[in-house]
Amino acid sequence: MFAYRPPLKDIQFVLADMFQAASVLQHYPEFAEIDQDLMQQVIEEAGRYASEILFPLNAVGDAEGCRLENGQVKTPAGFASAYHQFCEAGWPALACDPEYGGQGLPHTLNSVLYEMLNATNLAWTMFPGLLHGAYSCIHRYATDDIKRTYLPKIVSGEWLATMCLTEPHAGSDLGLLRTKAIPNDDGSYRITGTKIFISGGDQDITENIVHLVLARLPDAPAGSKGISLFVVPKIFPEGERAGQRNSLICTGLEHKMGIHGSPTCTMQFDDATGWLVGEPHRGLAAMFVMMNSARLQVGIGGVGIAETAYQNSLAYANERIQSRAVNRPESRKNEPADPIVMHPAIQRLLMSQRAWVEGGRMLTYYSALLLDGAEHHPDPAQRKEMDEQLALLTPIIKAVMTDQGFAGASNAVQIYGGHGYVCETGIEQYMRDVRITMIYEGTNEIQAIDLLMRKILADKGHRLGQLLDTIDATLAANTDKAVSVAVTAVQKLTATLRDLTERVGQASLEHPVLPYHVASEMMRLTGHCILSWLWLKASQTATALRNNDPTFYDAKRHTADYYFTYILPETLQLAGVVETCLARAQTQGLQDFRGDLNVQ
Amino acid sequence: MFAYRPPLKDIQFVLADMFQAASVLQHYPEFAEIDQDLMQQVIEEAGRYASEILFPLNAVGDAEGCRLENGQVKTPAGFASAYHQFCEAGWPALACDPEYGGQGLPHTLNSVLYEMLNATNLAWTMFPGLLHGAYSCIHRYATDDIKRTYLPKIVSGEWLATMCLTEPHAGSDLGLLRTKAIPNDDGSYRITGTKIFISGGDQDITENIVHLVLARLPDAPAGSKGISLFVVPKIFPEGERAGQRNSLICTGLEHKMGIHGSPTCTMQFDDATGWLVGEPHRGLAAMFVMMNSARLQVGIGGVGIAETAYQNSLAYANERIQSRAVNRPESRKNEPADPIVMHPAIQRLLMSQRAWVEGGRMLTYYSALLLDGAEHHPDPAQRKEMDEQLALLTPIIKAVMTDQGFAGASNAVQIYGGHGYVCETGIEQYMRDVRITMIYEGTNEIQAIDLLMRKILADKGHRLGQLLDTIDATLAANTDKAVSVAVTAVQKLTATLRDLTERVGQASLEHPVLPYHVASEMMRLTGHCILSWLWLKASQTATALRNNDPTFYDAKRHTADYYFTYILPETLQLAGVVETCLARAQTQGLQDFRGDLNVQ
Repeated sequence: MFAYRPPLKDIQFVLADMFQAASVLQHYPEFAEIDQDLMQQVIEEAGRYASEILFPLNAVGDAEGCRLENGQVKTPAGFASAYHQFCEAGWPALACDPEYGGQGLPHTLNSVLYEMLNATNLAWTMFPGLLHGAYSCIHRYATDDIKRTYLPKIVSGEWLATMCLTEPHAGSDLGLLRTKAIPNDDGSYRITGTKIFISGGDQDITENIVHLVLARLPDAPAGSKGISLFVVPKIFPEGERAGQRNSLICTGLEHKMGIHGSPTCTMQFDDATGWLVGEPHRGLAAMFVMMNSARLQVGIGGVGIAETAYQNSLAYANERIQSRAVNRPESRKNEPADPIVMHPAIQRLLMSQRAWVEGGRMLTYYSALLLDGAEHHPDPAQRKEMDEQLALLTPIIKAVMTDQGFAGASNAVQIYGGHGYVCETGIEQYMRDVRITMIYEGTNEIQAIDLLMRKILADKGHRLGQLLDTIDATLAANTDKAVSVAVTAVQKLTATLRDLTERVGQASLEHPVLPYHVASEMMRLTGHCILSWLWLKASQTATALRNNDPTFYDAKRHTADYYFTYILPETLQLAGVVETCLARAQTQGLQDFRGDLNVQ
Repeated sequence: MFAYRPPLKDIQFVLADMFQAASVLQHYPEFAEIDQDLMQQVIEEAGRYASEILFPLNAVGDAEGCRLENGQVKTPAGFASAYHQFCEAGWPALACDPEYGGQGLPHTLNSVLYEMLNATNLAWTMFPGLLHGAYSCIHRYATDDIKRTYLPKIVSGEWLATMCLTEPHAGSDLGLLRTKAIPNDDGSYRITGTKIFISGGDQDITENIVHLVLARLPDAPAGSKGISLFVVPKIFPEGERAGQRNSLICTGLEHKMGIHGSPTCTMQFDDATGWLVGEPHRGLAAMFVMMNSARLQVGIGGVGIAETAYQNSLAYANERIQSRAVNRPESRKNEPADPIVMHPAIQRLLMSQRAWVEGGRMLTYYSALLLDGAEHHPDPAQRKEMDEQLALLTPIIKAVMTDQGFAGASNAVQIYGGHGYVCETGIEQYMRDVRITMIYEGTNEIQAIDLLMRKILADKGHRLGQLLDTIDATLAANTDKAVSVAVTAVQKLTATLRDLTERVGQASLEHPVLPYHVASEMMRLTGHCILSWLWLKASQTATALRNNDPTFYDAKRHTADYYFTYILPETLQLAGVVETCLARAQTQGLQDFRGDLNVQ
């Protein structure tokens, strides 16, 4: 029976045991009231909502999908009702500004909430998933008028929001977009163009939809420096036309591999009325506030989805009896076969899933705490540093955790065997659904380039160096001999990463193409640096707390061991590729394969 | 526009340029008539059939799927007609014994045929895909009576065949199966039981279906040594009941992630009449003839599917214009953006696909030549050696090439970006379809164990050692300085593999669980050994022939370079994992993670 159990104890291990989140957050004036109990209560409530309300709708949404009828999108049965319960419980407002009706709670809690929402129903979660980004973007860039009109409705969840970026010919490269915005006399704009892949572009869940639309003003320079951002409501919220429909319509729905419960809309804007958000031509910068929030959340989603895949494939492996295990216990010697969880090959698949889920959770909560600090730390210098660290981690979380979310779901299918390929079992939907996360909000290849070019090499490795200094300082301070092998491994890795960063940076002066060839490897290397450091911390934490619950904490230590023994060696491959590319750059030069690819 | 172009030139490169297949085959008396022209003609014809008839039905089959109506399976529109054309052209008979109406052509040609069938329509290909296995199994083990009745119909394709192995509680572990066979007085048997996951268990394509069914005789010992094999026709072909239906029926179809065009049937046998094939209780051995043939073909399918994914994602990358490439040519300096094939990150994805497809093709054709040699070489010692080499390569081909088929299809989706996630584009179907190949005919985890335990360690590395000796001898004889870096890399790898095999074998005496922990890594290491050797051969061949067609052969050399620079470093990771496991085995011992996995 496919199921989801909120992993409350694992969450507490990371939040409370490893990071003492409540005490950290209490130091920020806005969060002085936060304590461990409050956090625990919110998380338990979120877990109940996700497992009891959302999870049962996941397979329904997949089977039923969305329909377009007379320009109106119909969502799967139960989706609207689940959303209304979500709003009644105040979840959209969780981490929003109390001035607009928000609860003013930390992003860290919001991250835990979204891990569980994604874990139970990715398609549904895409509806509220854009709310917080839209909120941040309007909160930061819009006029007071717009804020007063839209923010309370977004914070309460009464209206949902979309990001209208992509056009048929402009996806990763938004600089190519053509949607036009012509000024009206009253300060509004007439917006005309076609947007595609708009999640929740239309739905029957909320009475109004707030579209954030990128378009070009008449005097816009070409490319990405000529894009402006507009808020374009489906229904006019006020003024003469209050209650009337704006001239925009959903003209089509995509049939997709997965996330059938989320309507992926083609939106036609035909002299639709909108209002500018932020400066003219500076729309991309404003949109990136939304985008960065979305990227973090997509990565968190990868962790959540991998958790559900893990839980269910583990349950299956405990139940499914097949073949005798090499290490079967004496007690089973008369049984014809053993639960497949006893087979080392199945343990490898499961432990890999587990190590990535738990490591990913550490990484995402660590980042969420940075986000809270970046907004609320009393010291501006600390805020700035945390913001920069978060900018460094965001592409890693987005790309690595969605790659691993997909790998985890695929491993889960593998454990189920033939039964995993069958829809009835439930697991194959997870694999189909999660696949999109490697693509949307910037493909994982683009994340790697963002990391290496804009976050690492652009400041000559300064920001990365700070992070590695922090890691090395922790390692140097270690006195626990039980983890000395791991400490050495992490030390070696930080040294390798420093060295490769330096050499790739140097070589890129002469071979500007080089970093683009090795960006994915550099990203995963950086990810492993941080993950191995976090696993070391996890191991030390578990050792310190072992006597409270030996079984639980030993499992954490053994999972850390698993990471160091079976997963970390990936860094040998990654560094190996970077080394061979460096060597090539300095000898023959790096090949442009375009010509070869097209030889038939 | 989604398309398939038979990669004739690439096929010829491997068959003719690298392996001189025609001259090799001519040395076997049965193939004295084979020449390059004949082979080329057959391959071109196969390419036409696959691209013109099968490929257009692929999306139809996915959209339409199969239906069960009153116990009768309806296949998608066009599937039956395509099959009848397939038979009329004599394709089922290609590599079969002329005594039963076969064409007596080499398996090598059959492999090329099946690469292209799989490349264009995996679901459809599963119908004839089991024919050759059923043919081999009956040909080798059945009585003359059975052979006379069934073989001509199978060879002509007039009847299709199934493998009825799996039961709800017995998949990987066939020893657990419960279907019963009770002897009748006339030498036939009454067979009763439920089989699941039976591909083509029923269909509306052929008038009769030949089921090969595993069942237990009344006096059967428990486990896998008590299984017998029976031939059970859907319609009695002769005798009193000729033309009547046997008591077996399809009671259900699975809804699956992919291969919708292939009916995955639950089959109910209810005192169905069957006849024994081979010795009582020795059914698994007979079935393994069929299984090994199927495993090879599944691996070949991985190559074919990856080829189509490559071709289409390349075409998309050539057309899709997005962002400026770091290495854009001077001629495009006024363009707002470049074809994404110019971006190094996209080139990496494409070159990885290409290198795996082409390497996989070398490996599968090399193995097909071994199969022909194992059956037709005049020298029995040679036949035996080739048979043993093939047994070593079979699990590698099955597992590695299906893993890479899936990775290639997933890379292709990634190149298409959001458009790849949409059904309309065609590529996502390939990813869904190919996923099953990692599971069926023995999961890839089971292939790894088969390789390491039964093919490598069981003879103390003797067979593997022979292969490595062959490789090392080629390397030692190399005089081409242009490939000396690659030669050194392969030499290092064979030495590593010898060393690890020796040490894993030694350590397994004390830690029998160890090889089960590292089987997947050892399999991929062995795969890379052979692939790197084949890539070296490809590179040398291309150099020798360069003047005939510099563009074509240079692309081969550059793809070899790509393999050595970007792909081969995976062996560092693989060896790294084996090393850390060896070290762990000798210090703390290897963890049994079952307990930890279940800690919540």
